[in-house]
Amino acid sequence: MKETEKKLSTDAYKGVRDFYPEDMAVQSYIFETWAETAESFGFDRYDASVLEPSELYKSKGAENEEMINEQTYTFTDRGDREVTLRPEMTPTVARMIAGRRRELSFPVRWYSIPNLFRYERAQRGRLREHWQLNADIFGTHDAMADVEIILLASAILKGFGAKDSDFEIFINNRGALNDLYAAHNLSPEQAATATAVIDRKRKMSEDEFKAALADAAGPDFALPTEAPESVQKILSALSALGVVNASYDPSIVRGFNYYTGTVFEIFDTHEDNRRALLGGGRYDNLTGLFGGEPIPGIGFGMGDVTMRDFLETHNLLPVTLGTKTQVMLILPDLSDGERAEKVAKELRDLGVNVAVDLSGKKLGDQIARADKRGIPYVITVGEQEEASGTYTLKKLADGGETKGTLTELANTLR
Amino acid sequence: MKETEKKLSTDAYKGVRDFYPEDMAVQSYIFETWAETAESFGFDRYDASVLEPSELYKSKGAENEEMINEQTYTFTDRGDREVTLRPEMTPTVARMIAGRRRELSFPVRWYSIPNLFRYERAQRGRLREHWQLNADIFGTHDAMADVEIILLASAILKGFGAKDSDFEIFINNRGALNDLYAAHNLSPEQAATATAVIDRKRKMSEDEFKAALADAAGPDFALPTEAPESVQKILSALSALGVVNASYDPSIVRGFNYYTGTVFEIFDTHEDNRRALLGGGRYDNLTGLFGGEPIPGIGFGMGDVTMRDFLETHNLLPVTLGTKTQVMLILPDLSDGERAEKVAKELRDLGVNVAVDLSGKKLGDQIARADKRGIPYVITVGEQEEASGTYTLKKLADGGETKGTLTELANTLR
Repeated sequence: MKETEKKLSTDAYKGVRDFYPEDMAVQSYIFETWAETAESFGFDRYDASVLEPSELYKSKGAENEEMINEQTYTFTDRGDREVTLRPEMTPTVARMIAGRRRELSFPVRWYSIPNLFRYERAQRGRLREHWQLNADIFGTHDAMADVEIILLASAILKGFGAKDSDFEIFINNRGALNDLYAAHNLSPEQAATATAVIDRKRKMSEDEFKAALADAAGPDFALPTEAPESVQKILSALSALGVVNASYDPSIVRGFNYYTGTVFEIFDTHEDNRRALLGGGRYDNLTGLFGGEPIPGIGFGMGDVTMRDFLETHNLLPVTLGTKTQVMLILPDLSDGERAEKVAKELRDLGVNVAVDLSGKKLGDQIARADKRGIPYVITVGEQEEASGTYTLKKLADGGETKGTLTELANTLR
Repeated sequence: MKETEKKLSTDAYKGVRDFYPEDMAVQSYIFETWAETAESFGFDRYDASVLEPSELYKSKGAENEEMINEQTYTFTDRGDREVTLRPEMTPTVARMIAGRRRELSFPVRWYSIPNLFRYERAQRGRLREHWQLNADIFGTHDAMADVEIILLASAILKGFGAKDSDFEIFINNRGALNDLYAAHNLSPEQAATATAVIDRKRKMSEDEFKAALADAAGPDFALPTEAPESVQKILSALSALGVVNASYDPSIVRGFNYYTGTVFEIFDTHEDNRRALLGGGRYDNLTGLFGGEPIPGIGFGMGDVTMRDFLETHNLLPVTLGTKTQVMLILPDLSDGERAEKVAKELRDLGVNVAVDLSGKKLGDQIARADKRGIPYVITVGEQEEASGTYTLKKLADGGETKGTLTELANTLR
């Protein structure tokens, strides 16, 4: 390049993250645990492009008009189509389900791990892109689907090693709340304002909340103290399935207006991280936007950033996360490269993940490099080893050595 | 929704794909084979956002100005930043490597499986988004890195079950070609035209090619018939490592101008699919755009669509790809749901992937549904089974039945 040319910045685009291998290892661990747990519940994986026609988000009503215009990445393509980087996955999965409503054999259990974009004004620590597990059951009104979805969310946290005391599950029913609004003759606008107040209950004092709720829904309006029957049934089934940390909470309403029945959130109990880890609910009318009879759905979303914070808060990230390379081959001289590549190939054919150190550095430095990268074993590959067919597998943690043929050492490693 | 409201389309955005579970299973199989093979060679996974500052692509010269303006998704965000959906991964990985040049202990082996966007005018079958394995070694000029990269590409195809005769590896050296241009006193413009002609050699007849090359580089210019020493060295090492289908081909030049040394492509040998499956090469100056000493790199990219075509052409896709659910629990009555959820939980705790049929259909229909989804086993869960603690595991392929406790059946399944 020309000396006079301006140097390019190595920074990522504002608000998105680069995943260097050490961060990618954490991300992969989170994604794998999500996927394995969802698959243990019989969920099949799906995916779609991050690009969606903007109309997919516009049709949900006026509040979404604002969202699409001010909070999403939306642009016009050269074919004059308005296109949006998806801000959430539910409209996409509803679109896909509706598109195959005749072929699919309901109920179906689906999960995905999409990246989602939100356009936020530049603020410290606010991300514009994150990843989210989305798990949904479509095609049944049966309460056991609600139970399963909450059980799955709980099983995921436990799959990471969380204890029952590390999190709390709060359940409510949006339908019951709507019935209550109707009983108090609230207008749709009053109901929406009341819902917004209830949604902020945790962020207000008891007195502030009472005043705000009276303001929105009248002085006689109060949240129920006893769980509606639908919530009681779910709590009873969860209890029978060994879930001891679930309870009714009338203040759980969820932000999105498409929820129609069960809604739930899971909170971290740690005092340093008292916030919602995930939330979800039942939305029985969403696919109706695409025509035909609506297909009921229930599901939840769980973000990667929140998940990592939870794991770090509770010391649940495995210390061994890192490279999947098991053995580094150490070269007395860089001219031993071809010899080492042959040994590497033989070990790979025996099922070992193996890399060759092509740095040309001294033996001790090569071993230190492998150790720094978290590779557990090294094997030195020189003329002598090749001639004898006997190699030494050195465990870096304790310096322990095992001698043998490559086949023997591969067996040791597996 | 209101009856009068326009129905939303269930189509994906133009030129991108929805991955329903059956397609996602193929995609996951391809990604997993890519990842496992790269990790067996000691490559660490990285990732980045699909959004990149547009300047990352503009700086590579005038030919890229055109590319960025006409062939990428580029838009201006509300902070007046120009942002592009990445059309390739190499500039991103060069940016990341340059950003940590002081911390990284070179050479490093990195891989990623990003989605990439290209804005193409609407054409039948042309996709605007695809996924690509990118594998690169940074920080060494050693020819063994070139050997490893080509060996990895070959090992991936073999990892899918391809035979040596299913593909051919062609290798050249861009540096040697540039030396030849210099020996013939070609101007940079003449050299660029000649390279473009050579790049299209496979698409022309022998006579057409000769005429076009003479036109571009003069009547005395001819492609060499003997491999340069650098290519001979790589071919010899590959041969020693058991690669029997690699050869020198002076017409392999690769499109991108940043290649400086070894370049290679792998072609399908099947007459129905005679085309490049992947390509790559050495680019020793790319990180120089970010300032500091350039860091040498060599790598390749391999697309998901091309990969799937190859696997289908050679009948290499496993027939068993599909759901990871092992057992479907069949319910005599939907009111058995809670009982079945308990059995499901017990089986999951024993390591079995299990789903509960909440369709409320007849027993026979439930079994047919499981079979259609490719789930290999069913267990009926009724009052009687719960009371006796003995369940029957039925294999749908042959109707074979095994009776036992859940623990016994779980052992059978693992």
